[in-house]
Amino acid sequence: MGARLLDSISGPQDLKGLSVRQLQDLSQEIREEILATTSVTGGHVASSLGAVEIIVAAHSLLDCPKDKLLFDVGHQAYAHKLLTGRRDQFSTLRTYGGISGFPKPSESPYDVHPSGHASDSLSVALGLAKSRDLRGETSKIVTVIGDASISGGMAFEALNHIGQAQCPMVVILNDNEMSISRNVGGLMRHLGMMRTTNHYREARDGLQDAMESAGRIGRGLVSWGRSAKDSMKQFLIPHSMIFEQLGIVCTTPLDGHDLGLLREVMAACLEMNGPVLMHVVTKKGVGYPPAMANPERFHGVGPYDLKTGASNKPAPAALTFTDAFGKALCAEARRDARVVAITAAMKGGTGLSDFSREFPKRFVDVGIAEGHAVGLASGLATGGDKPVVAVYSTFLQRAFDQIVINCALPKLDVVFCIDRAGLVGDDGPTHHGMLDMAYMRMIPNMRVLAPSNEVELALALHTALSLGGPFAIRYPRGEASGWELPEYPEVLQPGCANVLREGEDVALLAFGHFAKNALEVADILAGFGVSARVIDMRWVKPLDMQAIAQAAETKLVVTVEDGVVAGGAGSGVLEALNEMGLRPETLVLGIPDTFVPQGKISQLHHQLNLDAEGIAVSVLQKLGITDPQ
Amino acid sequence: MGARLLDSISGPQDLKGLSVRQLQDLSQEIREEILATTSVTGGHVASSLGAVEIIVAAHSLLDCPKDKLLFDVGHQAYAHKLLTGRRDQFSTLRTYGGISGFPKPSESPYDVHPSGHASDSLSVALGLAKSRDLRGETSKIVTVIGDASISGGMAFEALNHIGQAQCPMVVILNDNEMSISRNVGGLMRHLGMMRTTNHYREARDGLQDAMESAGRIGRGLVSWGRSAKDSMKQFLIPHSMIFEQLGIVCTTPLDGHDLGLLREVMAACLEMNGPVLMHVVTKKGVGYPPAMANPERFHGVGPYDLKTGASNKPAPAALTFTDAFGKALCAEARRDARVVAITAAMKGGTGLSDFSREFPKRFVDVGIAEGHAVGLASGLATGGDKPVVAVYSTFLQRAFDQIVINCALPKLDVVFCIDRAGLVGDDGPTHHGMLDMAYMRMIPNMRVLAPSNEVELALALHTALSLGGPFAIRYPRGEASGWELPEYPEVLQPGCANVLREGEDVALLAFGHFAKNALEVADILAGFGVSARVIDMRWVKPLDMQAIAQAAETKLVVTVEDGVVAGGAGSGVLEALNEMGLRPETLVLGIPDTFVPQGKISQLHHQLNLDAEGIAVSVLQKLGITDPQ
Repeated sequence: MGARLLDSISGPQDLKGLSVRQLQDLSQEIREEILATTSVTGGHVASSLGAVEIIVAAHSLLDCPKDKLLFDVGHQAYAHKLLTGRRDQFSTLRTYGGISGFPKPSESPYDVHPSGHASDSLSVALGLAKSRDLRGETSKIVTVIGDASISGGMAFEALNHIGQAQCPMVVILNDNEMSISRNVGGLMRHLGMMRTTNHYREARDGLQDAMESAGRIGRGLVSWGRSAKDSMKQFLIPHSMIFEQLGIVCTTPLDGHDLGLLREVMAACLEMNGPVLMHVVTKKGVGYPPAMANPERFHGVGPYDLKTGASNKPAPAALTFTDAFGKALCAEARRDARVVAITAAMKGGTGLSDFSREFPKRFVDVGIAEGHAVGLASGLATGGDKPVVAVYSTFLQRAFDQIVINCALPKLDVVFCIDRAGLVGDDGPTHHGMLDMAYMRMIPNMRVLAPSNEVELALALHTALSLGGPFAIRYPRGEASGWELPEYPEVLQPGCANVLREGEDVALLAFGHFAKNALEVADILAGFGVSARVIDMRWVKPLDMQAIAQAAETKLVVTVEDGVVAGGAGSGVLEALNEMGLRPETLVLGIPDTFVPQGKISQLHHQLNLDAEGIAVSVLQKLGITDPQ
Repeated sequence: MGARLLDSISGPQDLKGLSVRQLQDLSQEIREEILATTSVTGGHVASSLGAVEIIVAAHSLLDCPKDKLLFDVGHQAYAHKLLTGRRDQFSTLRTYGGISGFPKPSESPYDVHPSGHASDSLSVALGLAKSRDLRGETSKIVTVIGDASISGGMAFEALNHIGQAQCPMVVILNDNEMSISRNVGGLMRHLGMMRTTNHYREARDGLQDAMESAGRIGRGLVSWGRSAKDSMKQFLIPHSMIFEQLGIVCTTPLDGHDLGLLREVMAACLEMNGPVLMHVVTKKGVGYPPAMANPERFHGVGPYDLKTGASNKPAPAALTFTDAFGKALCAEARRDARVVAITAAMKGGTGLSDFSREFPKRFVDVGIAEGHAVGLASGLATGGDKPVVAVYSTFLQRAFDQIVINCALPKLDVVFCIDRAGLVGDDGPTHHGMLDMAYMRMIPNMRVLAPSNEVELALALHTALSLGGPFAIRYPRGEASGWELPEYPEVLQPGCANVLREGEDVALLAFGHFAKNALEVADILAGFGVSARVIDMRWVKPLDMQAIAQAAETKLVVTVEDGVVAGGAGSGVLEALNEMGLRPETLVLGIPDTFVPQGKISQLHHQLNLDAEGIAVSVLQKLGITDPQ
């Protein structure tokens, strides 16, 4: 094994003297390093492999960190990490205390903004450009954004502004042809047309046929014929006219793995006195056949066998909450034709793959567009359907306003199935879903359920679809309890908790999957002679006032939740106690007022004293007990 | 005075037999009715006058409520209200118990969705279209959206999906040429170009010049020359190609006041077997010279003199909170060149007009794009500036995620100045800002101030800009206390409340402008022999733990806030008390778990028992006191 070029790169400045050939070799080494590490740690492999040449080209031309290189979503930035002084720590990728899987400003001066949520980088980049221009500086600003992310509303708002502001900056559209497999949205179709002559010719012909058969054409439509036919001409100009019409100069589609071409064009773009969009076409997973063959699986993947690409993860013992949701929803949809499922570019992630196959007409993937997903749901509900919006907790934050105004205010039958609620592990602070109970329960007309296992999840879903009105159901990442889903789930009584274990000394009011922790806590407490009642609260809103009142008769009320304490479910219990004029000693346990780092979920709960042991210690301390009985 | 046609219209079906000439007469009568009512009640005059013919044409062709007519934002829908059985109640517009200023489903089956927040109608319309198609129905779906609203990210997400889904629906783009006066965004410029040959020719030439001088062109840019010059050709095709590229067929720009043309084209569009965008050009305020002359003032206006258009509102005795913010911010900006102000299409409404004149380079209006506004702010802060984002409380909900991920997580120096916090009065539930304290205080790293008057507002702003980090400052609509703003404001100590009055029996912990109410409450309580301490809490986060601990020594702790109780500031006080192990009797007063209707602010506070009298009664009840001493 000869000396690697990569080992001689301590920062981007070391790329400056390298030839294109050497940069190509370096790219190959970076790929190998990414594969060696992610096969052990897991990670975002396909997109990171696809973006290697873009990143190498950018760092060979830019002078970072004075110049700014941004990554939208950020999971494609592994090469960036390897080139900016983090090669030696790269093996700690996505582990507790290790390198983040996303750009993270507190980790490195080369990381500009905390990536993770799609479509934000253009806004941040324009802000940086304006800031630079205000102080008369000349640094370069480059942002890399994928074709899925650029279709998000926030990205469009930014493009619209970029086109008007005309601040110099380079937007690299990393077009990895997601539009072919996913076919989501008019913009993606447009990009697809741009991509190759053959592609867009086919599409053009198809569109033209569709238009010509599109009903009778009214004589009052001025030059309608031109509109339908002549507008096709524009597609013959191989430029992304949507962007040009917004005022952003565009390149033709460029081969994103041709380092020489990328460097040449990028160098020219960096000299432009206004915003430029470089349309770069890449292949996900390039250089690693298993990832090229199955880019969807290698989008985000656990540890895998480097040779075959096969998963090294032990087969799960039980269904995940996500799987259980998917199964339960299919069962509901079989019984009720009004059930419609909506996802925002997370079909697999939210457990809707089976649903999409069984009910293709009742399945909608809107792409990365959470706000629209919720608005669309409100329209479906207004039309008499029963939309179920399945979104990760952290991403649903994007649609907070639409939940309030479009769904809760008119009290529509929309069910929010909030996956990845609570701490999610190795994706870290941008992906933890720690706010949902707090932001949902403040909304009038909203009812909020936190099922503790897969059976409860099926009951919760059935309840929401049966009772109508806006509902939020939140459940965590990972395996559930391994129980059979009920064939005919019953309707849960709103505001009725489920007593899991009787006890007199303390009452543990648990929300969601922490009911399991609470049972373990009760076992530990029993060893100290403390008898603990354990209640699966089921409902975050409305709360079970009777269960809370009865809890107040014990020595200590303890609430536990996998969400923020500030305004969370436990805070709701405090409100309820206060409303009833009850003032028992109360311990509110949950995520403190801080962003939580990455790490294994169990590890993070341990750090936050939210595992069974940590909770038990807090309870014993509060009770003044230090030794076992 | 002859019999009015309008008086014979009890519903849209009565339009069916009318000639174009009669519809024109009817439109004139509708204008007169709108002016007669709004001159007394105030309202959204300019846009409502501009949309009369669009609405008359639509209702003459559609069969509502089976067909669906949606309005984006909705303040242009007065003619719709007059034609759908609400003529007799129209004089109650925007009053407590009266007709809403926006479409409101609970008011009428003709109102499809609760309008108020921009850019949502296309998502709702597509949801309705999908729902219709799922059940094989054939109803028509038409949505009216302005050129400002269509540039919002949510609208783009919907257009992107509409272009792909190809469900039949008609989008009426009500292009009232806001882009000329406001010039916000590339999309608006594009629409402006479309509008008339002269306009777009001028713009085209200007753009071409700009492009030709746009720096040296790299030889590596494949066919760059074509990109810059040939792409101009497309502008010669008078259609909105951005929409066509997304897959939506478009008309040429149509005169939005030509009823015959509108009906003819709309009838043809309604027959199309896919989505159609009707590009309709209207004039704001048409038919009323004062509104045409000053559409900005007549956007949302108080009572006015019908003849002259002059305001009938008494001159305010004091600066509004909004004005005070504008002045305080200008003073800060004079002292610190890093201060940048950002608004989302609300320059006047958020008090930034003076700032925009004095610091044009440091003022940014992003249009209706709150998510981008906050992302842009994070970029400016990353670049070393001190962005101040001034947005109405209810609209900032659109940017919840960006606040969390883009500003709070990286702990950037972004100040959110949240205007219209609390109840806002006659605009009703879509516009009340009742969630901000709850949604802001749950965010780690965020500090939240609720100034009680204009002096406190100046101090809060100075504090936020001095201390750095993410800050939220929330203040209400309306007049402040009439005090002089401090020339050199001091920095407030985080988590330090301000004792306004000493007292022993009860402690009133007031947030924001409710400090004023609290002083009145103390006066009333004094009449019952109850001595009340009054504390202006200043900080929602961090809370003043000492003030709360001392309050716990009284007989009753009372928190009062102009925001929701669930998760709100008072809930934070409960958490603080619990954390300190204190369990005093506590009364948490604020907005209950319900959407609040429209009405005068004082009236609404009275209804909710949140005026001084209502609060005093609650306190006395809790103390068991019924008679004065």
